[in-house]
Amino acid sequence: MSPGPMDGLLVVDLTRVLAGPLSTLMLADLGARVIKVERPGHGDDSRSYGPFMDDRSLYFARVNRGKQSIALDLKDPDDHATLLSIIDRADVLVENFRPGVMDRLGLGWGTLSGRNPRLVYVSISGFGRTGPWRNRPAYDAVVQAATGIMSITGSPDSDPVKPGVPIADLAAGLYAFGAIGAALYGRLATGRGTHIDIAMFDATLSLLEGAALSYLATGVTPPRIGNAHYSIAPFDTFACADRSIVICAANDSLFAGLCRALDRPDLGTDPRFVTNSARLAAREAFKQEAERTLRAQPAAYWLKVLGAAGIPCGPKQRGGGGLLRTGCFPRHGGRRRGPSAARESGEDGGLAAGLPAAAGTGTRRGRPRDPGRVRLIRRCAGDGGGSRGRDTRDREHSNGYRTSTGMASGGVDEGTWS
Amino acid sequence: MSPGPMDGLLVVDLTRVLAGPLSTLMLADLGARVIKVERPGHGDDSRSYGPFMDDRSLYFARVNRGKQSIALDLKDPDDHATLLSIIDRADVLVENFRPGVMDRLGLGWGTLSGRNPRLVYVSISGFGRTGPWRNRPAYDAVVQAATGIMSITGSPDSDPVKPGVPIADLAAGLYAFGAIGAALYGRLATGRGTHIDIAMFDATLSLLEGAALSYLATGVTPPRIGNAHYSIAPFDTFACADRSIVICAANDSLFAGLCRALDRPDLGTDPRFVTNSARLAAREAFKQEAERTLRAQPAAYWLKVLGAAGIPCGPKQRGGGGLLRTGCFPRHGGRRRGPSAARESGEDGGLAAGLPAAAGTGTRRGRPRDPGRVRLIRRCAGDGGGSRGRDTRDREHSNGYRTSTGMASGGVDEGTWS
Repeated sequence: MSPGPMDGLLVVDLTRVLAGPLSTLMLADLGARVIKVERPGHGDDSRSYGPFMDDRSLYFARVNRGKQSIALDLKDPDDHATLLSIIDRADVLVENFRPGVMDRLGLGWGTLSGRNPRLVYVSISGFGRTGPWRNRPAYDAVVQAATGIMSITGSPDSDPVKPGVPIADLAAGLYAFGAIGAALYGRLATGRGTHIDIAMFDATLSLLEGAALSYLATGVTPPRIGNAHYSIAPFDTFACADRSIVICAANDSLFAGLCRALDRPDLGTDPRFVTNSARLAAREAFKQEAERTLRAQPAAYWLKVLGAAGIPCGPKQRGGGGLLRTGCFPRHGGRRRGPSAARESGEDGGLAAGLPAAAGTGTRRGRPRDPGRVRLIRRCAGDGGGSRGRDTRDREHSNGYRTSTGMASGGVDEGTWS
Repeated sequence: MSPGPMDGLLVVDLTRVLAGPLSTLMLADLGARVIKVERPGHGDDSRSYGPFMDDRSLYFARVNRGKQSIALDLKDPDDHATLLSIIDRADVLVENFRPGVMDRLGLGWGTLSGRNPRLVYVSISGFGRTGPWRNRPAYDAVVQAATGIMSITGSPDSDPVKPGVPIADLAAGLYAFGAIGAALYGRLATGRGTHIDIAMFDATLSLLEGAALSYLATGVTPPRIGNAHYSIAPFDTFACADRSIVICAANDSLFAGLCRALDRPDLGTDPRFVTNSARLAAREAFKQEAERTLRAQPAAYWLKVLGAAGIPCGPKQRGGGGLLRTGCFPRHGGRRRGPSAARESGEDGGLAAGLPAAAGTGTRRGRPRDPGRVRLIRRCAGDGGGSRGRDTRDREHSNGYRTSTGMASGGVDEGTWS
């Protein structure tokens, strides 16, 4: 297998939980060497998040596959020196401490860019490094609520509800991944790294999209509109005889085709539905008309008829599990995966967040060095500063994961977490 | 202002609507020259999507700011030759036609990489270029439903509901942005481009996260859990005297702090709540206990008390509009934006999707060439093949946007859409 596009890249990962680890996961999947620094005796908080398999956190394993893990006490002078020696050789550093902490640790952008001018230094935080909210502690749900994404999710007569995925973390991680690639490209011209400031809040705010545009244009706080779309109609779920399906007719041509497929030429010429803007204003009226016809047959019938007519439509699958159960992973990294394959790879999380970006003809996805296995190396309790390179016994920790104690020479070890 | 990191990059954008345009928007924001190819006389479908300002689509303007637009009929030999002449010089091409269309147009990966081996060629589709669903037409809602993200969004007693943002489009666009950066970095070593295959389905599936992990570990289809978290507790909305707030105590230390801040030491020592796993199993019991205390005071009181104790917490803002109304853009690109600034920039969409990734110290964000203004250039009806370079009169089109007819020499023009 040819190397991934990030082959040769050295990444220092000081992040925890989800947003930061996702960004460096992408780099690892694409061939980078990622050294994840964890707190001795505890490790990333997410090692205590379930579900567990063989006492290992799938939550942790899934976003940290293919990385190498090292336990360092950043307040210990020897460990600090070890970290600096790695950073001096690194291309990328990612951290998600609260603003100011890295400076206090002697690891601020000014210090590190002075030592290593080519370093791309990425700070991920809830609300960014500037602004009145910069010191607020944040997790995904805090940010989701603050951006208003909850207030536009749900049906008009329901309470606001959080999208079922941690989108603030995930969006920040994806923005960071993209920004790192851009900064590395930009470094070609300047020879210098940069400081990238990613806020989960900014990342999530950028997703508001139709709802935010609607407010900007009208000044009216956007309502919850269930499964409909703020700018396009018809673009919604529609009830058939047995269950509902999604239909998206996002231009005049598709709308005409939809009316033909429903055998409802009256809708195609109805002045209420003549343009997208008109259909948007008369969204409920069209839905009622369409459902009068759709309710005469089951969903399977309509998916076949509409599909044959080229109308974008589809069933509502059940989340995650339902999807796996149907065996319908059409592709992942260019190959089909059924439930058994997904379960086989369940050890490292199963659903590989990195795959969509990695499929490529010319450049193959890099093989993770040690997929799904991360070793937490820590200094033995009571060891002095000179104990590196010594292997000691495994020990069980109270939070359900085992750490293999011992410190590799140079501070880095490729090992197996088990 | 220093150039953006993508300065000097030439991008050909053959995409429409949202996922593709978002990926190239990021490149344009970061300094790339993006040439957007549109269909003569019609343009990107999203030009007909509201809201509108001065008859211009904000939907379109927002994801196409800073790009240059050219109208080409890809089946016309002269226009085809014009496009090839641009592609031969390009670094990146992004397309979102259905699988097979680019090949039929003589613009397939094999052909173009033969002409320009350095070309990074990105295909974005609903379900990818391989697999049984590859030919299914897709828009955001079709993909959201197919991945099961709807089935895990909503309260346990409600119907499944779509997250209020077009996350399938947005996730695909962000993955594409990241993948392009990685491919450009990888090109340094190989001198060759690559073919990147982005599926909205894959991108969205990767977001399922906790719900998918839960299924992989347990085999049980994940239920809807409202605002709670699949792996962490307490991590939810909690009712106060007047309204609910978000509280996230994602580790034992924060949980202990929360119990202290609530003045409920009994909860901190309750065996039901001793570890994250225990708290997850007893999620509802803790919520009831906590709300007994929280309901005694209004949300503002608790946000102050919990905030002072360093517990991640926050209010639920109203979507987009409510957020702007409060004036609480803490930062965007490193500067504060109030409602007036947001409205001033409403012309080009207001909420700049590209900003989070662009903030940087060493490398400044590139200035978009022509922010918020895109000129659709088309050949005059009735013109022969040799009419390039001639300016003709503006004309109004039935879909509410005006096109400035005329074709610049070389096929590209920097102009103003108005």
